[in-house]
Amino acid sequence: MKYLKKSLIGKEPYYSKEISSGIILNANESAFETPKEIIELVKKELDKVDLRRYPDTDNTLIRESIANAYGLDITNVTIGVGSDQLLDCIFKSLIDDEHIVSCNPTFSMYKEYASFTNGKFIDIDFKDDINFEFDTEKIIEAIKKYNPKLVIICSPNNPTGSAIERSNLEKIIIAANEINSVVLLDEAYSEFHETNYDLIKKYDNLFVLKTFSKAYALAGIRLGYMIACKDLIDTINVVKPPYNMSRLSSIIASIAIKNKNLYDENIKKIINLKNELFDDLQKLGLKPVKSYSNFIFLKLNDKIFDYLIENKIYIRRLKYKNEFWHRITVGTKEENDILIAKLKDSIM
Amino acid sequence: MKYLKKSLIGKEPYYSKEISSGIILNANESAFETPKEIIELVKKELDKVDLRRYPDTDNTLIRESIANAYGLDITNVTIGVGSDQLLDCIFKSLIDDEHIVSCNPTFSMYKEYASFTNGKFIDIDFKDDINFEFDTEKIIEAIKKYNPKLVIICSPNNPTGSAIERSNLEKIIIAANEINSVVLLDEAYSEFHETNYDLIKKYDNLFVLKTFSKAYALAGIRLGYMIACKDLIDTINVVKPPYNMSRLSSIIASIAIKNKNLYDENIKKIINLKNELFDDLQKLGLKPVKSYSNFIFLKLNDKIFDYLIENKIYIRRLKYKNEFWHRITVGTKEENDILIAKLKDSIM
Repeated sequence: MKYLKKSLIGKEPYYSKEISSGIILNANESAFETPKEIIELVKKELDKVDLRRYPDTDNTLIRESIANAYGLDITNVTIGVGSDQLLDCIFKSLIDDEHIVSCNPTFSMYKEYASFTNGKFIDIDFKDDINFEFDTEKIIEAIKKYNPKLVIICSPNNPTGSAIERSNLEKIIIAANEINSVVLLDEAYSEFHETNYDLIKKYDNLFVLKTFSKAYALAGIRLGYMIACKDLIDTINVVKPPYNMSRLSSIIASIAIKNKNLYDENIKKIINLKNELFDDLQKLGLKPVKSYSNFIFLKLNDKIFDYLIENKIYIRRLKYKNEFWHRITVGTKEENDILIAKLKDSIM
Repeated sequence: MKYLKKSLIGKEPYYSKEISSGIILNANESAFETPKEIIELVKKELDKVDLRRYPDTDNTLIRESIANAYGLDITNVTIGVGSDQLLDCIFKSLIDDEHIVSCNPTFSMYKEYASFTNGKFIDIDFKDDINFEFDTEKIIEAIKKYNPKLVIICSPNNPTGSAIERSNLEKIIIAANEINSVVLLDEAYSEFHETNYDLIKKYDNLFVLKTFSKAYALAGIRLGYMIACKDLIDTINVVKPPYNMSRLSSIIASIAIKNKNLYDENIKKIINLKNELFDDLQKLGLKPVKSYSNFIFLKLNDKIFDYLIENKIYIRRLKYKNEFWHRITVGTKEENDILIAKLKDSIM
């Protein structure tokens, strides 16, 4: 790549062949398809929408639908092409060369998007490698020591599945507030546990990031949203590209959140399936991490991972402290049973 | 915005209320709606698509459809959320603090996206303010003098409507090549005139940027694409966010380009309507710039612009050399007739 700019030399283009058959448990998507009722409502809208027109750059329809669902004002909401675009906007709008306090392991894209700034990450370990509990004390120590511009808490955390307690989260937000630092609470998986979005009413230094890609079973439309006080939303909107969201994605997400009762049963099922899978993994002698999300984190040896791939079962492999760990998305009952059977084969 | 980073202080969040009624001639959208046949084909796809899954990060379906339409290889194509995301990727991947040679006036978003780098723009005037012909000699002089990393040519140019001759374009590409500089040819409006995309087979320093937002009447899906040699496409894909495109947008664009014959007649009609509008504007004593696109650029006084807004006719106002100029998108016959009638009212 002879024209790639100097500061990026060494980086490679990202390509990854799509997996469309087999048992797909590698991307934390919903175990269940988008409800048919949602798709039928979308079809009706297709006759009315004028796709020739640019989308509403203010994204009023979907922001209003989200604001209504949470009892917030529209000025407390902004949306992006997945959480990804909003992450990019956070770093673009906040970070020149300041510190960023975050946990390890956590969602890898934070560092990816921050790499376009000169931000410096301080990674805080979890309390141990068994339950991966958030180490609130160490996070607060780091805030006091490094004076970061941004503190990132992903809860439930990807990939560990562990969640922060509300009281500890508040301690972190208060510590950050004292030094004029912003907290990003990434709640991509909160529908499987609990949300603390309401804290934005109490603290003006809190971003809450959410998505339609997980519990809403709509990863294909690429729509994430951010909830915060108006001043922080304005800050994001300084750098958000205009006309960023496809008209259809806005319409679909709006239908989904207005009909969120259609998802309640599936969410309950996924939580139950997760608990069953956890028990089954333990029965195999494995040590899954207690999860508050729709995936389970655990150590597996390479032989097992390869055997699963041979059997077209796809899970996510991640390097953590020089060892391979694995993140398994909760599938349907049938998928989980096949996974467990194949794990049993490969362990015996 | 107390948390906005220092380097952005002074910038404001961008909000703009959507205009959804009246005569909308301000965004260079197609005068005609998306063909009904396309929408019907999309509905059928809705029953098959699994929106719960993340999109294919390689965007294979739409890249293959585009590559086939142009007789290129899939490795010569990448796609973005509108041309906008690809512009962002160009600056992110190429520019640290180098010079960028571009024309004035041209598409305002070039500078917007470049503002996240330390790139320095050199603006080259057109030959005159009557036909706004590209000043090839001055552009080449600037290339030799400033040693830019990037040269941007928008042809047909937004907002002037003027187009560069192929032979002159090649001279610029060759001059740029000699100093290892890349040329971005923005062809958002080329379906209304001519495309020079095939030059990517001859030159490895040429990006050609195209979109479904104009002639394809699909601004609402936000899908732009870039054609270039594999090495330049790889360069963009170093910084392109993964999973960037909504599954439905890819499907719709793919249907559209496979059925591009459905657009042929409308494109011809728009060109004829443009010529009629040009003549009508001249008859009013105005001085429209000769246009090779689906819009017309001209000077109007403020009183006229305000009168049009009062009558719910929306055109685009731009400041150029301390005067207000206006860009009028070609509408339907009925819309153009009303526009001309109201212009006549306000001039008399």
